[in-house]
Amino acid sequence: MEMKMHGWTGNIATIDLDSGAIKHAPLPKDLARDFIGGRGLGVALLCNRADPGVDALHAPLILAVGPLTGIAPMSGRHSFVTKSPLTKTILDSSGGGFFGSELKRAGFDAVEITRESDSPVYIVIDDGEVSIRDASDIWGMNVRKTTDLLAGRHRGRVACIGRAGENCVRFANVMNDYTHACGRGGIGAVVGFKKLKAIVVKGTGKPGVADEEAFKSANEEVSRLLRASPPLKSLSTYGTPSLANLISRFRLLPTRNFRDVQFRDGESASAVSLESSTSPVSSMSGEHIKENYRLKRHSCHKCSIACRQSTQEGIEIPEYETIAMFGPDCENSDFDKIMDTNRICNDYGMDTISCGSTIACHQEICEESCDIAELAARIGEREGLGRELSMGSKAYSDAKNAGHASMHSKGLELPGYDPRGALGQALAYATSNRGGCHTRAYMIAPEIIGKPKLIDRHTLIGKPGLVCVFQNLSAAIDSIMMCSFSSFALSSEEYSNMLSAVCGLTYTSEDLLRAGERIWNVERLFNLRAGFSRADDTLPDRFFGDYGIVQAEFEDALGEYYRFRGWDPEGVPSERKLEELGLRLEIG
Amino acid sequence: MEMKMHGWTGNIATIDLDSGAIKHAPLPKDLARDFIGGRGLGVALLCNRADPGVDALHAPLILAVGPLTGIAPMSGRHSFVTKSPLTKTILDSSGGGFFGSELKRAGFDAVEITRESDSPVYIVIDDGEVSIRDASDIWGMNVRKTTDLLAGRHRGRVACIGRAGENCVRFANVMNDYTHACGRGGIGAVVGFKKLKAIVVKGTGKPGVADEEAFKSANEEVSRLLRASPPLKSLSTYGTPSLANLISRFRLLPTRNFRDVQFRDGESASAVSLESSTSPVSSMSGEHIKENYRLKRHSCHKCSIACRQSTQEGIEIPEYETIAMFGPDCENSDFDKIMDTNRICNDYGMDTISCGSTIACHQEICEESCDIAELAARIGEREGLGRELSMGSKAYSDAKNAGHASMHSKGLELPGYDPRGALGQALAYATSNRGGCHTRAYMIAPEIIGKPKLIDRHTLIGKPGLVCVFQNLSAAIDSIMMCSFSSFALSSEEYSNMLSAVCGLTYTSEDLLRAGERIWNVERLFNLRAGFSRADDTLPDRFFGDYGIVQAEFEDALGEYYRFRGWDPEGVPSERKLEELGLRLEIG
Repeated sequence: MEMKMHGWTGNIATIDLDSGAIKHAPLPKDLARDFIGGRGLGVALLCNRADPGVDALHAPLILAVGPLTGIAPMSGRHSFVTKSPLTKTILDSSGGGFFGSELKRAGFDAVEITRESDSPVYIVIDDGEVSIRDASDIWGMNVRKTTDLLAGRHRGRVACIGRAGENCVRFANVMNDYTHACGRGGIGAVVGFKKLKAIVVKGTGKPGVADEEAFKSANEEVSRLLRASPPLKSLSTYGTPSLANLISRFRLLPTRNFRDVQFRDGESASAVSLESSTSPVSSMSGEHIKENYRLKRHSCHKCSIACRQSTQEGIEIPEYETIAMFGPDCENSDFDKIMDTNRICNDYGMDTISCGSTIACHQEICEESCDIAELAARIGEREGLGRELSMGSKAYSDAKNAGHASMHSKGLELPGYDPRGALGQALAYATSNRGGCHTRAYMIAPEIIGKPKLIDRHTLIGKPGLVCVFQNLSAAIDSIMMCSFSSFALSSEEYSNMLSAVCGLTYTSEDLLRAGERIWNVERLFNLRAGFSRADDTLPDRFFGDYGIVQAEFEDALGEYYRFRGWDPEGVPSERKLEELGLRLEIG
Repeated sequence: MEMKMHGWTGNIATIDLDSGAIKHAPLPKDLARDFIGGRGLGVALLCNRADPGVDALHAPLILAVGPLTGIAPMSGRHSFVTKSPLTKTILDSSGGGFFGSELKRAGFDAVEITRESDSPVYIVIDDGEVSIRDASDIWGMNVRKTTDLLAGRHRGRVACIGRAGENCVRFANVMNDYTHACGRGGIGAVVGFKKLKAIVVKGTGKPGVADEEAFKSANEEVSRLLRASPPLKSLSTYGTPSLANLISRFRLLPTRNFRDVQFRDGESASAVSLESSTSPVSSMSGEHIKENYRLKRHSCHKCSIACRQSTQEGIEIPEYETIAMFGPDCENSDFDKIMDTNRICNDYGMDTISCGSTIACHQEICEESCDIAELAARIGEREGLGRELSMGSKAYSDAKNAGHASMHSKGLELPGYDPRGALGQALAYATSNRGGCHTRAYMIAPEIIGKPKLIDRHTLIGKPGLVCVFQNLSAAIDSIMMCSFSSFALSSEEYSNMLSAVCGLTYTSEDLLRAGERIWNVERLFNLRAGFSRADDTLPDRFFGDYGIVQAEFEDALGEYYRFRGWDPEGVPSERKLEELGLRLEIG
């Protein structure tokens, strides 16, 4: 296949933080074709550089954008890929905002960052020029200050870590454009371990499009579908907190460290902020927030949904997941407290899901109630109890001989949907290759929200194939780099039409899903070689049993999932499957 | 549940054609709530009246509309329900146009027609008044003439049979508004056996809506989604022939009685109409038709898609299914011949799928090539060879000791998608309760068209659950009465919002799907008591084997399908399932 490099910039920068060497290399065309960009490209580049057995904090870090970044609707995104210091799995973590589009305009598809610096540094990427700068004066600052300072100094877009990343909190984020997070799995700890405080990007390039007419047509179709979508309209109106009432009504709301599935007044640790007639959950719902705060909406680059909200004063409104974890899961019904804790996490650069769940785990083990805001700050500082909790709930509970109290899969804390009430999501959690994550295959969409079609949430039968479809499509969307929310409205055809128009290649729907499957299989191989096995594709014991998921049915479904994937009964991809996907790469 | 009768008229008419007695009865509210309308209501009413073992031609006939008929977008539809004289299964057959909306305005949700008249009659329903008229002067006429005459005489909307129905051709249609068909399974034969030539409806009522504001909001949402949908745009531009190129490219095109899956020049019996550079299929494609004919588009009531096409002179353009069966499946590459044969079938009132497939079956058995137009007319007249073929391909091939050549499931000829290339569709054919039908669960949407999401068409794993979801949703859509094409754009949430707004009841998405499941189970019970069993849930031998579907995998999938449905290994609904669905009815 003759490839023009439309969509891609064609350039990769490699930065050795130990030697300070900076290299430029062309993006291999076959890699771009097969792994597309973003998550897929990052995964492929990581596997070329890293032994899956490497100690996580020492792993290379890949920053990548996709061929649609900054071009298509909902495409203002970028992805970090490395080995997770929290889960030891392969990890990609993507974020929105404006940073990704700026990196593309600065002329790079990917930036590989290897080894560690002795002293704090930050990287400046300015229209093709890459330099390493001294960060001694900003080391120790949290995210807002760091961003203020570097954005002011360079007039560029800033991705940085806060104190949590510096302190290698195992669930530290990289934050960009102030409040956008590359969260889950501790990308920020890897960055902090490298003594890399920030990356600043400035770009004036204009990404080209191969076929303007086809792009216009694909763009119109996509825009029409995005405008028509009811769930996107709801996100646009209420942000992700629009989920709170729905999830509570279906009794999926993680409550008291997943010991209950609905949050009631009587169980709330603090009911100060509640009117007596309002249930704690509805007081945290999108509808309630909209009524009670004067809100501003914020969008990422190229997005008309604008699902992020803040108060008029600029205080960020927490996402649904954050509300679920710092609210019901921590037995907290004080929404202002959730707002405060969210702000602290964002400023320290910490994953609110893992932070909230780890606090909930601690509360269960020690049978005590904590001030979540104060404890979050101590975790970010890694002091006292915060130091213990900074390793995540699994390490913490194991150290306490109370592993049963960590609500994780593969070491990643589960997000705001109880798996007992959505069995497809349960299987998706268990088979997720970065641990207990909802974005690998958001089965909540068909099982609860009813998109694209409602399916029976109480059965595992018929789900394994669907979970694979969702996983493959999500991997593809994360690689072309569009926001996963777009999949409420679009199917693979619209994505592949857009990709074909931008790149000047012919990607069919099948090609796109095949790329997603290829990426998923490479990620699986990485994890297998890092020591994971079938036994890790599971959930906490709490979710199994008479009132939960039937273990035998779950094992059957897992077996069928492997069969559907073309993997052996231990979950190892068959030679035939790898051949079919054109995977000959030696990982590590 | 206190029920207002918005959406429904609340009236049922019962007409005994033997005695001439006409009765009016109220629509039982629990029946409306549980079975909704259209197909569901018809099925419930039929089961109240008929023993499933009844001889098909003697079965009662129910005509029904739904609560959304004539109100919602794409809702100009009505449904006939009876026992099929072709398959001996329960049969519902719905059609578009303007007839259904007129019946609703005339004040009826359903019309039950029992026993047979001695002499030809037709029924006039005029704003609540029902009368039986003498049809001696029109008996013997085909559809166009009958419609002309009765529409002129009564200024109403006409549904009628042509000569095929009069002659009890086992795949005769009822036709309404000239060219709209209630096809598949031989509704027209039941009507003809009753000596009922036509039903004329006139109505000036205006169906009410319970909650105008909620309706407006639901209507706007639905309209926005319909406008945005790419497959609906394609249907709007090219009609159903837009499928021809796609289906051919995926090698699913029934060719030479399903002996091949793609139609090539060299194999065509007559290549007269083809330019040498054009493949026979592309010369029958929507794109080609649009280029080569001056077309007019026609819509059903309340539809902005307008997928029906005719020439400027009013000659109807065949649907994709018709093209597939009279074209490649009959080894015919002459599109004008397909147009002619289609017109003959419409005028005689005959199902083009069964007609085409039965001719293809005959051509295989007798190894001869026929003039399809001439043979179609002879079938309609039931003369000579036409008499033998008028019983359908299964009866014909059995009589010839060549049962292998009938491409049917449960006696209904398969439509224009080879099941070997879309295994979910294969399972949907086999488990369809009216035989080899694509509309019970149009798995072509996810497997080929990629809507709502593309899934792997070459596997049965993970499909049984999906087939059930599609079957239940289709049963619900057929019962609220919206066009099944709407499901390219809508999910159960939009349907249930619309239904709730119109009826003033609260139907959740789950309620709607549960109603669909209830209907499906009643249909299954009817068939079981009519003598069907697991052995009938299958496909012709041709599709199994080394180059087709693996029999063992198919049986596994069927077993899983039963399990998912809550049926025993023989496909019998469990007591528990029936209880769960609130089904206590004694059928027959």
